[in-house]
Amino acid sequence: MTKSIENRGLFIVFEGVEGSGKSTQCRLLTRQLEKNGISFLHLREPGDTNTGEKIREWLKTGNDLDGHSELFLLSASRRALVKNKIVPALNRGQVVVLDRYIYSTLAYQGFGRGISIKQIEYINMMATDGLSPDIIFLLDIDPKASFQRKEETSLDRWELEDIDFHKKIRNGYLEISRETQNLWTVINADKPKKSISEEVWEIVLGRLP
Amino acid sequence: MTKSIENRGLFIVFEGVEGSGKSTQCRLLTRQLEKNGISFLHLREPGDTNTGEKIREWLKTGNDLDGHSELFLLSASRRALVKNKIVPALNRGQVVVLDRYIYSTLAYQGFGRGISIKQIEYINMMATDGLSPDIIFLLDIDPKASFQRKEETSLDRWELEDIDFHKKIRNGYLEISRETQNLWTVINADKPKKSISEEVWEIVLGRLP
Repeated sequence: MTKSIENRGLFIVFEGVEGSGKSTQCRLLTRQLEKNGISFLHLREPGDTNTGEKIREWLKTGNDLDGHSELFLLSASRRALVKNKIVPALNRGQVVVLDRYIYSTLAYQGFGRGISIKQIEYINMMATDGLSPDIIFLLDIDPKASFQRKEETSLDRWELEDIDFHKKIRNGYLEISRETQNLWTVINADKPKKSISEEVWEIVLGRLP
Repeated sequence: MTKSIENRGLFIVFEGVEGSGKSTQCRLLTRQLEKNGISFLHLREPGDTNTGEKIREWLKTGNDLDGHSELFLLSASRRALVKNKIVPALNRGQVVVLDRYIYSTLAYQGFGRGISIKQIEYINMMATDGLSPDIIFLLDIDPKASFQRKEETSLDRWELEDIDFHKKIRNGYLEISRETQNLWTVINADKPKKSISEEVWEIVLGRLP
């Protein structure tokens, strides 16, 4: 899908368990980009297309979904986002800042729900035509600590899963990040927001044209 | 998923292009089953679960869907149907009459939209855990003739595709049916409804316990 693009923009992905501070760090990064006059597109998964927003809502409330149904729905959302938003933005030379990508599916539906990693990699490839980010930030945190950051009243279906499920996801992320090490920056998400955002900005700055 | 079931019910699938008379024949078959006091469940794809009905609606109206997004959405709907409706019904010994199954995806997204058949077979296997029907009826008709049966005002997104698209689908069905010949009964859908339904009933009757 992007093989023919020569001067494409930078594709940055944030990953991590619930409450690890991904949304905050995405926002802080886009502020820096804005300040420096760098054109960007800030997106999140699932969502940010007509199809994706519908799916985001179903995933939060649907009570007849197993791991495979989740996987298919997430892939439909991802496909629409890659095709209609991410690839066009990269083609325009924009920086794309994405909150969750294929690694969330590996971590949640694979390591969390126990679906075969090989199957998920196959589906991820189909959904994205193999589009890889340039930088992935993993905000790594003990799920116990991350849960304390959230108000209990706002927990959705996934957040209500028990702590063991979220531990599997954390360990899954760490395992995935070791396999394609050159793409990943693992950050201790227990550190102050400001210090994390400075670390992120330094790395992004080093990769901007 | 069903390998451990010994006396499971009969799983009957109807396939065919738009306007081939699938819904009518499903209904006529269920009337015969009812008349004969045979317990059945009549389902259609996509749909017939909470998630499936939302997906059915979205597939008809969503304007940011390509073949892959369709494939993922259809698979999510199928997964929910197989797991929550079809397998439990077969376990109870019921006859399941299903309007469209995995072969529709092969015909429409594969032969129609040009997605690799190997990829679709892989996804179909994931969605169904390999659950195969006992009987498949293909209502075969020239798309031109089938279109003349429909009111133009009620055409949805798929029905509005050009006639060549529907020809590809028809030929796709015929090719698929040749590959697993023992499962398929190809019926000329140009024949009168009553004569088709009699043909269907004779075959079903021969397979009932």
